[in-house]
Amino acid sequence: MRSSERSPGSIVDDLVLMIGDAGVLEGQDVSDRFDGWPPERALQARCIARPNSTEQVSKVLQYCNAAGLKVIPHGGRTGISGGARSGADDIVLSLERLNRIESVNPVDRTMTVDAGVPLATVQSAAQDHGMLYPVDIGARGSATIGGTIATNAGGTRVLRYGSTREQVLGLEAVLADGTIISSMNRLMKNNAGYDIKQLFIGTEGTLGIVTRAVLRLRSLSKSNATAFVGVASFDHVLKLLERLSVACADVLTSFEVMWPGFVELVIAHSTHRNPLSGFHKFCVLVETDGSTAEKALEETLGELLEHGAIDDAVIAQNARQAAEIWNVRDDATARAAAMKPNIHFDIGLPQSEMNAYVVNLRTTLKDTWPNAKLLVFGHLADGNLHINISVGVATEAMLAAVDRAVYEPLSAIGGTLAAEHGVGLLKRDYLALVRGPDEIALMRKLKNTLDPNETLNPGKVIPR
Amino acid sequence: MRSSERSPGSIVDDLVLMIGDAGVLEGQDVSDRFDGWPPERALQARCIARPNSTEQVSKVLQYCNAAGLKVIPHGGRTGISGGARSGADDIVLSLERLNRIESVNPVDRTMTVDAGVPLATVQSAAQDHGMLYPVDIGARGSATIGGTIATNAGGTRVLRYGSTREQVLGLEAVLADGTIISSMNRLMKNNAGYDIKQLFIGTEGTLGIVTRAVLRLRSLSKSNATAFVGVASFDHVLKLLERLSVACADVLTSFEVMWPGFVELVIAHSTHRNPLSGFHKFCVLVETDGSTAEKALEETLGELLEHGAIDDAVIAQNARQAAEIWNVRDDATARAAAMKPNIHFDIGLPQSEMNAYVVNLRTTLKDTWPNAKLLVFGHLADGNLHINISVGVATEAMLAAVDRAVYEPLSAIGGTLAAEHGVGLLKRDYLALVRGPDEIALMRKLKNTLDPNETLNPGKVIPR
Repeated sequence: MRSSERSPGSIVDDLVLMIGDAGVLEGQDVSDRFDGWPPERALQARCIARPNSTEQVSKVLQYCNAAGLKVIPHGGRTGISGGARSGADDIVLSLERLNRIESVNPVDRTMTVDAGVPLATVQSAAQDHGMLYPVDIGARGSATIGGTIATNAGGTRVLRYGSTREQVLGLEAVLADGTIISSMNRLMKNNAGYDIKQLFIGTEGTLGIVTRAVLRLRSLSKSNATAFVGVASFDHVLKLLERLSVACADVLTSFEVMWPGFVELVIAHSTHRNPLSGFHKFCVLVETDGSTAEKALEETLGELLEHGAIDDAVIAQNARQAAEIWNVRDDATARAAAMKPNIHFDIGLPQSEMNAYVVNLRTTLKDTWPNAKLLVFGHLADGNLHINISVGVATEAMLAAVDRAVYEPLSAIGGTLAAEHGVGLLKRDYLALVRGPDEIALMRKLKNTLDPNETLNPGKVIPR
Repeated sequence: MRSSERSPGSIVDDLVLMIGDAGVLEGQDVSDRFDGWPPERALQARCIARPNSTEQVSKVLQYCNAAGLKVIPHGGRTGISGGARSGADDIVLSLERLNRIESVNPVDRTMTVDAGVPLATVQSAAQDHGMLYPVDIGARGSATIGGTIATNAGGTRVLRYGSTREQVLGLEAVLADGTIISSMNRLMKNNAGYDIKQLFIGTEGTLGIVTRAVLRLRSLSKSNATAFVGVASFDHVLKLLERLSVACADVLTSFEVMWPGFVELVIAHSTHRNPLSGFHKFCVLVETDGSTAEKALEETLGELLEHGAIDDAVIAQNARQAAEIWNVRDDATARAAAMKPNIHFDIGLPQSEMNAYVVNLRTTLKDTWPNAKLLVFGHLADGNLHINISVGVATEAMLAAVDRAVYEPLSAIGGTLAAEHGVGLLKRDYLALVRGPDEIALMRKLKNTLDPNETLNPGKVIPR
C-alpha cells in the first residue's frame, strides 16, 4: 500500500514518515511470513517496521511506547519457543535492513556488525580474515546475530568456546522509551562500571532491542578431527568424556551423544549410512579442533578400544566423511518423519543425573501412552539434551501432560527447561518449575524498570 | 567488648542478638585491619559483622537497610581501587566465616563454595580432584571467591579461560532489603529466564552481596610450557602473538608483555636473574597449557628465531625454571622499590592502539615531569596493561594530573580505565571518560531499583 492511500494520521503513516516507505510492510507482505519455527503459523501484525539504523529503531520505539503500541522484535524467525509471535494489533520490528558488517579487525580479533546480519555471513566474514566466529547452529543461514544474542544461542561448540554471551564484547541496544544504550566495548577485559550489555543478552527482546554488536573472534585451527564412537552403556559415555577431556585437553569441541535407537531411526528414515559397521547402545560424535589434536584423539580412542571401554570407532579421513558423520546427528527431517507428530524439548541437567532421568521419562511415557516414541540426543558435555517425543495424534491436554512429564522431574535435579532455545511464549508458564519466586520477582522488577509500559515483546519469558 | 558492657539496644547489641557474639568485632579488632591494598589505611567502622550463613547475611542487611545504616562488604581486602573503604559509622560485612567448600562434583565438573573461601583454597580443592579452577591472580592466598566474583577478577589466564564471570555457573546473593536470590545453577547452558546472576558479578557489592557460588571446573592439563622471548619492536610482539595464536591454537594461556626497561629494572631491584643472556626492547612471557602444546611452542619459536622474527628465547626445562621466569614478571616488590612513590594503573585498550598510546603517554609525562619513570607490562592478548608511574614526591594536584594523562586518551581509542581491578572509589569520578551518560544513567537506574536506600557499598562505582 502506498502512503497516499492510507488514512491520514494512521499509525502506519506515522511510521512511514519516520523510516520511509521501504521501511514499512503491510498486508500480504506480513501474512506471507511465518512467526517462528516450524513455519506453520502466518504472521499477524499491524505492520512490519524495518528501520535501517539504530536512530530509526529509537524513533519507532519512542513513538510506539508513547502510543501504547506493543513491539515484537524479529530476527531470522528460527526460534522454536514462540518468542517472535505477535498479535494483529502489534508492530513487528524487524532488524533485516540493519545488515552491514561494519568492520573486521584481525589484530584486535573483533568484528563489528549490525544485528540483522545472518550468523552464516558473520562466520564467512571471519573465515575470510583467517579467523573463526565459533557459535554454530543448524539455522545459521537465517538466524541473525541479533537473534542469537537475544536468545544467547548455544550450538555444538559451547563446550570449547562458550555460548553467544561469551562472544559478545559490546553491543548497542534501544530501550522501550527509545533511549540508545551504546556499549560497544571492544576489549576482552573491561570492568569499568556495570556490564550492562548482560541485560540484553538472553532476555529475548523484553528489555531492549539489540541493534549492533562487537564480536570476539578466535583463531581458525589448522586442522580438526571428527570421530563416531559406539559404546555399551551410559557409564561408558561418561568415561569416554572424562578420558577425552584430559587427553584432548580443551581442544575437545563437540561431544554429541545419541541415545539408544537414535541412529537406527535416522538411518531408517534417510539415505545416510551408519558410520559404524553395526548398531550400539549409545553413539557419540566427537570433534576436536586444534593443531595436534587428531593424533591425541586417535591414540586415545585406540587405547580405549583395546581396553574394551568403547565398542567401535571410526575417524573421518576427510571433510566429506566428517560431513557424513554430522549428517546422522543433524538430520532433523529424518527425525521429524519418524516422530510425527513431534514434540521437541530443549532441556538441561547435570551429566550425573542424565541416565536416570531418561530412563524414568521413558517409563512415565510408556505407562501413559504405550506407543509413545522417545528420541534423545544432545550436547552431553554441556548438560544439554534435545528430546523428541511422539504420542500419536495429540490433544491439548495430552501435550500439556507430556510437557509436565518432561519438565516436572527437572526441578529436583537442578535442571532447566530451556538450555539454548529460550523461553519465549511456549515455556513461560512452566518457568516457576526451575526458577524460584524471588528470582522471578527480580526478573519482573527489571522488566518494570526498563520497560514500564510493557512495550517490548510483552507476555514473553516472565510468567504473569 | 562483651555484649553485657554495651548500652542496651545499641546497633552492635542488635547485631549480636542476630548473629552471635563471635559474629561481631569492634574496637581494636576493627582498627587492626587495613581497608584495601596496599595495607596503608586502618579500617574504620562501627563494627565488623561476620555472619556465618546466607540467612544471617539476610538478617543483617534487612536490619541495616531499615535503620538507614550503610553496609560495606569485605572479602580478602586485596582490592586496589578503594572498593572496601568504609567510614566510622558504617557496618563492615565480612564474609570470612562463610568459608566452606560445600561439594566438588568431578562428573558435572562443578564446585559449590561459600563466598568467603580464599581463591587458593578453591584452586587446591579442584586440583585434589584432578581438575583446574583457572582464575589465578597474585593475591590468591587472601582474595576470596566472593571478592573475585564481585570484581570479576581476571589474571594471567583470561586469554584461554575467560574472566571470573565465565567461571560462575550460579550464585546466591542477598539484596539490600535482605531478599535472598538463590540462583545456584549448575549447568553450562541455561536460558530459562533472565540470567540474573550477571547483576552481581563485577558490580562490586553495590547491587547485592554474593554469599555462595557454583563454579565451573576444567581439566588439569597433562603438561605445560613456559617461555621467555625477546623481540626488537612492538610490531614483532604482535606478529609473535598472531603466530602463536594459530600454532598453539587455544592452548595459549598467557602472553605477558614487558615494555622497554621493565626487565632491566626488576633485575636491578631484586635477586632474579635475566632469563635471557641479554636485554631486549620488548620481552614476552608465553605459557601454553595442554597435552601436546610444548612441542608446538618449541617448533614455532625455533622457526621464528631462524627468520629473525624474534631475537632470543628460552623455554623452561622444569617447574623451577618456569617459576623463575614468572618471578621476573610478577615481582611487585622490586617494581615498588624502583618506582617509589608508585602510582599503579590497570587500563585496557585495543592491541592495535597500544604502542602509540604508550609512546604518547611517555612523551606527555616527560614533558611535564622530566624525571618521570614509566613501567609498562600486561596481559597483552587480553588488551590489559598495567602501568606504574613515578613522578617523585607527589601532591594531590600532581596525582590528579597523572590520572588525567593516563585516562583521557583512552576515551578516543575505545579503552578502559578498569580492566580487571574494578572502579571502587578511586576511579569512580573518571568513569564518564569511558562510559556514556546513557550507560551511567542505566547503572544508576539499576542501583536505585535494587538498592533504593543506598545501603550497599554507597558511593562506589557509579559517579554521583
